[in-house]
Amino acid sequence: MNNTGKFVLKILCPDQSGLVAAFTGGIAQNGANILDLTQHTSEDINIFFLRALMECESDAVPKIKEHFSKMEKEKSMQWQLYDAEHKTRLALFGSNTDHCLYELLLSRRDGALPCEFTCIISNHAVLEPLARFFNLPFFLVPSTLPKPEQDKKFNEILHASQTEGIVLARYMQIMSKEFTEEWNERIINIHHGFLPAFKGAKPYHQAWAKGVKIIGATAHFATADLDQGPIIWQGVQQVADTGSIEQFIQIGKEVEKRTLLQALKLWLEHRVFLYEGRTFVL
Amino acid sequence: MNNTGKFVLKILCPDQSGLVAAFTGGIAQNGANILDLTQHTSEDINIFFLRALMECESDAVPKIKEHFSKMEKEKSMQWQLYDAEHKTRLALFGSNTDHCLYELLLSRRDGALPCEFTCIISNHAVLEPLARFFNLPFFLVPSTLPKPEQDKKFNEILHASQTEGIVLARYMQIMSKEFTEEWNERIINIHHGFLPAFKGAKPYHQAWAKGVKIIGATAHFATADLDQGPIIWQGVQQVADTGSIEQFIQIGKEVEKRTLLQALKLWLEHRVFLYEGRTFVL
Amino acid sequence: MNNTGKFVLKILCPDQSGLVAAFTGGIAQNGANILDLTQHTSEDINIFFLRALMECESDAVPKIKEHFSKMEKEKSMQWQLYDAEHKTRLALFGSNTDHCLYELLLSRRDGALPCEFTCIISNHAVLEPLARFFNLPFFLVPSTLPKPEQDKKFNEILHASQTEGIVLARYMQIMSKEFTEEWNERIINIHHGFLPAFKGAKPYHQAWAKGVKIIGATAHFATADLDQGPIIWQGVQQVADTGSIEQFIQIGKEVEKRTLLQALKLWLEHRVFLYEGRTFVL
Amino acid sequence: MNNTGKFVLKILCPDQSGLVAAFTGGIAQNGANILDLTQHTSEDINIFFLRALMECESDAVPKIKEHFSKMEKEKSMQWQLYDAEHKTRLALFGSNTDHCLYELLLSRRDGALPCEFTCIISNHAVLEPLARFFNLPFFLVPSTLPKPEQDKKFNEILHASQTEGIVLARYMQIMSKEFTEEWNERIINIHHGFLPAFKGAKPYHQAWAKGVKIIGATAHFATADLDQGPIIWQGVQQVADTGSIEQFIQIGKEVEKRTLLQALKLWLEHRVFLYEGRTFVL
Repeated sequence: MNNTGKFVLKILCPDQSGLVAAFTGGIAQNGANILDLTQHTSEDINIFFLRALMECESDAVPKIKEHFSKMEKEKSMQWQLYDAEHKTRLALFGSNTDHCLYELLLSRRDGALPCEFTCIISNHAVLEPLARFFNLPFFLVPSTLPKPEQDKKFNEILHASQTEGIVLARYMQIMSKEFTEEWNERIINIHHGFLPAFKGAKPYHQAWAKGVKIIGATAHFATADLDQGPIIWQGVQQVADTGSIEQFIQIGKEVEKRTLLQALKLWLEHRVFLYEGRTFVL
Repeated sequence: MNNTGKFVLKILCPDQSGLVAAFTGGIAQNGANILDLTQHTSEDINIFFLRALMECESDAVPKIKEHFSKMEKEKSMQWQLYDAEHKTRLALFGSNTDHCLYELLLSRRDGALPCEFTCIISNHAVLEPLARFFNLPFFLVPSTLPKPEQDKKFNEILHASQTEGIVLARYMQIMSKEFTEEWNERIINIHHGFLPAFKGAKPYHQAWAKGVKIIGATAHFATADLDQGPIIWQGVQQVADTGSIEQFIQIGKEVEKRTLLQALKLWLEHRVFLYEGRTFVL
Repeated sequence: MNNTGKFVLKILCPDQSGLVAAFTGGIAQNGANILDLTQHTSEDINIFFLRALMECESDAVPKIKEHFSKMEKEKSMQWQLYDAEHKTRLALFGSNTDHCLYELLLSRRDGALPCEFTCIISNHAVLEPLARFFNLPFFLVPSTLPKPEQDKKFNEILHASQTEGIVLARYMQIMSKEFTEEWNERIINIHHGFLPAFKGAKPYHQAWAKGVKIIGATAHFATADLDQGPIIWQGVQQVADTGSIEQFIQIGKEVEKRTLLQALKLWLEHRVFLYEGRTFVL
Repeated sequence: MNNTGKFVLKILCPDQSGLVAAFTGGIAQNGANILDLTQHTSEDINIFFLRALMECESDAVPKIKEHFSKMEKEKSMQWQLYDAEHKTRLALFGSNTDHCLYELLLSRRDGALPCEFTCIISNHAVLEPLARFFNLPFFLVPSTLPKPEQDKKFNEILHASQTEGIVLARYMQIMSKEFTEEWNERIINIHHGFLPAFKGAKPYHQAWAKGVKIIGATAHFATADLDQGPIIWQGVQQVADTGSIEQFIQIGKEVEKRTLLQALKLWLEHRVFLYEGRTFVL
C-alpha cells in the first residue's frame, strides 16, 4: 500500500521549445498532481527555471525520477526531486552572539522553518546554556585549532548527526577552502553589512564613517572567499545620522536576523537556483 | 503565412487533480511554447489560478481557444487568452490634480506601461494643456450635469475611441452604479488613504488626527460603493509626527502615484484575478 | 559631593514666543548641559513640544525642578524630568505565544532596551519555563477569575515588585476600565493587525478575506476600549496573494514583535507625548 | 517699519558645555522666536550640530549675525543664517532622460520643493521641449567641447541667472575638478546605483549579474571623483530574480527620482551638515 506525499521538483536547463509541457506531462503520466508551479525563462541568459510542488503516491516517485533521468542528457538539465515533508537537518555554527540563533530556533519551533537542528557548534562555550535550553547537543571547537583539525571535527559531528546543511549564524570565522567545497551550496552565511558594499571587518564602522543612510545585511552561500558567495537574500533598514555606531550595530542585528531567517526559509523550500555564480530565487 | 506572437492565458477554476498537465498539454499540442508560468492553488478556498505567457504562431490561437472552450464546462473554469503585444486602450479620468496623470503618461512614454491612452476626461478645464502636451484629446464633462447625462457622454467618448479600460487618476467623483457595472473590472481607482482604514472624505486629516505613523494608498477596482472595490495594490510610507497635515498630503501624493502605477502595470500584464470580491495577484 | 547624571526633560504647552530660550536658559542657569534636543511646534494645533537630554550634577536637579514648577502655571505646561539612567521597571503580560516576549527579553539583555523586567504575568502556565530561563518571577492569574479579583492580584504583584509600566505582549485579554485608568499611559499593547483597519478578533483572517497586499501591527497605549488607544508605532510588511492565512499569521508575528520593540524603545526614551488622544513621537 | 520673516540657523562646532543655552539665549535676546529646533551631539566624534527655524523681525537679523560672529572664533564654529522664505535658485543639468527632471519640476510646481529653477542645461537638444513646457530657458552645451570651455559656458549661464546651486538630474558627465571645487557643496548628483556598492558605468548590469535582491540609488554632493562625494540620501527597492536587466533599469529610475527629490528637499531645508567627508542630516 502507498502513502501520498508532497514533493518539490527543481529544473534548470537551457531554454527550448515545449519544455513545460514535456515536464508537466511527464509528471501527470506518472500520476502526480501539481499544486504550485513557477516557471521562468531569463531572456537575458536564455536559461529555463522551474519549481513545482506536486502530490503523488510514493510509488510514483521512482517512475518520475526515471522519467527525468532519461531526459537529463538531451535537455542538458540539472534537476532534483525533494521530499517536501522531509525536515532538512541543519547544524548551527555560532560564536559570541546569539540573536540569529534565537531567531532561527524560535522560528523553527513555531513552525515557520521546515527543518530540524542537529546541534550547535561554536568556538566559544558561551552558547552552551542556549543549546541546553533548546535540547540541542553543543560542541565546542576552538578556532585556535589548526584548520584541518577543525574541519575533521566538524565533519565527524556533522556526519554522525546526519546533518545535511549548515547555517553560519554569525560564526565570524573564515571556513577552509576544503570545507566550503565539500559543503558546497549547503552552507548559508549572514554577512553583517550590505554586500557588495562593505566587505570584511567592522562593516558598521565603515558604513557610519561613510555616512550611509541605509544599512543592510546579506545572506549568501559561503565560499572560501570571505563574504563573496552567491547572494540568497538581502534586507535593509534606514538609519538616522543622529544614531551612534553602537546604535547602527543594534539596528544591524535586527536586519541580520530577519535576513538570515528569510534566506533559510527560501532555501529550505527549494526556491533557490544557482547559475553561474548568482542565485535565482523563484 | 503566419506570424509569431505572444499570448497570456489566465485560468481560474475549482482545484482538481491533473489540471496543470491538462492545460499545458493542450497548449503544447497546439504548437505554443510557454515562456513564463505561475500556478497557484489557494488551499484556504480550494481555487486554482494559472497565468502563462506563451509564444505561438497566429493560426494556433483559434485552436487553443477551441481546446479551452471544450474544457470550460467540465472544469467550471473562467479563462481568457490575451494578445500580450496588444496595447490596452485606456481613458484617463482626472480632476484638479495631475500628479497621477504625469506618472502614468511618463511611464507609458518610457515603455514601462504596456498601454495606449485614448483621451483625458475631466470635470475641470485645468488639465487641458497637459492633454495637449501629451497629444491626447481632452473632454470636459462637468460634474454638475445629471449622472445619466455624464454617463452618456462618457460612453460616447469611450466607444468612439475604442477604449477598453478606465483609470480614475484622482477623479474624486463617485461613478454611477450603471456605469461601474457596465465597465465592471475595467475601472481602476486610486484611493488617497489606506483602505480599509480611512474611507471617504479627507483621509489624510483623519489619519493625522488619529496620529498614524504610516500612511498609504490603495488602488482598487471601482464599484458604485465608494472606495470599496477589490484591492489591486497598496503602498505605504512612514510619516513623522513633526509633519503637518499639508506634508501628509504631499507624502500621500507620492504614495498614490507609485501605487496606482504598480496596480495598473499588474492589471495590464493580466496578473490580477478576481474571485469572490477579492483579487489574487500572481 | 555630587554625581553627574543624565536627565530627560519633556515639555508640552500651548505655543508662545520665547519658550525655547526660557526653558534652555533655565537649564543653563542651573548648571545643566544639553546633549540632545528636539523641539517642535505643531502649527496645525499650535502646541509646543520639547524633549531634551541633559547632563548635570545631582544637586542641580531640585533647582531645575523648582524652576519649571514656577513656570508651570503661567505657561499652562505639562512637564516631566526623568533620570535617563534609571531602568524603568516593567511587567510583561503574556498568554500562549512567546514571540514578542523573546524579542523584548533578548533585546533588553543585549542592551537595546533601557529597562528591567520585574516579572511575567500570564493566564496560562505555558510561559513558566521561559520566565525561569530568564530568571524572572512568574505569576499565573487565570482569566476565569472575576475581573476585580484579577485586578487585585495584578496590582499586588505590580506594587510588590515596584513595577512602573506594563507591556501586553500578546496578552489577548481586555483589561478592565479601572485597571487601564489606574495604569493610564503606562500600558503598552501590541495589536496584531493594522489599526484602525481591522479591529477585534481574527484580524489576519479579515485581512486575507479582503485581499490586502500589506499587513501591519500597531503598538498603542491600552485603554478599556479594545485596540483603540493612542498609537505609538506601526509596522508593515508586504504579503503575496499566494500566501495562506497561516503564512499571514507567521508574517504578522514578525511585524508584531518588531513594532512592539520599537514602540517600547521610544516610550522608554521618553519620546512619546500624548495630546488630545493622539501621540506625538519626537 | 519692519517685516516678520523666518530664518534657519545652522551651527556646527566641537561640543562643549552650555552651547544650546548660549545660542538660543543669543537668539532670544535679539527678539527672535524659535519654532523648531533640532540639536544633536555625535558622541562618536564629539561634534555639536544645531538647526533652528526661527521667526523675527527683519531688523533683528543683523544683530543675530553680529552675535554669532562674535562667538565664532571662541567656539570654533561654522554657522549660517538662511532666509527660510528665500527660494533657492537652482539650475538643472540633464542629458537624455527626463524622469528626474519631471519629478523635480512637478514637485516644485506643487509646492513640495522650496526653490526656483533658473534653467535647464544639457549636452543634448532633446530636453528643449520640456524646458519650453515649463517656461525655462534651455542651454545646449555639448560634451564634445573641451572641459574648460564647457565650464566657462556653465558659469556664464549660472551667474547671469543668479543660480545658487546645481542639480545633476542624470547628467551622466564627469564634472571638472575646477568646476566642482568652485561649486563645492552646491552640486547634488543622483547616482543610479547603490553607493558604495556599484561605482561607475552600468551599475544595473553589475547588480543583475551579481544577483542582488535590492537595488538602490544614492544622492550625493558631486566631486571630481566620480560617484564618491558625501552621501545625502539613499533609497532602495526590492527586485525579483524573474526581472530582466531592462526591468531593473525601470525600477531603478523610480528609485532614482524619489531619492533625488528627497535629498534636494533636505538640502533646501538646510538640514544637511557636512563634516569630514560625510553628511549629518538633521
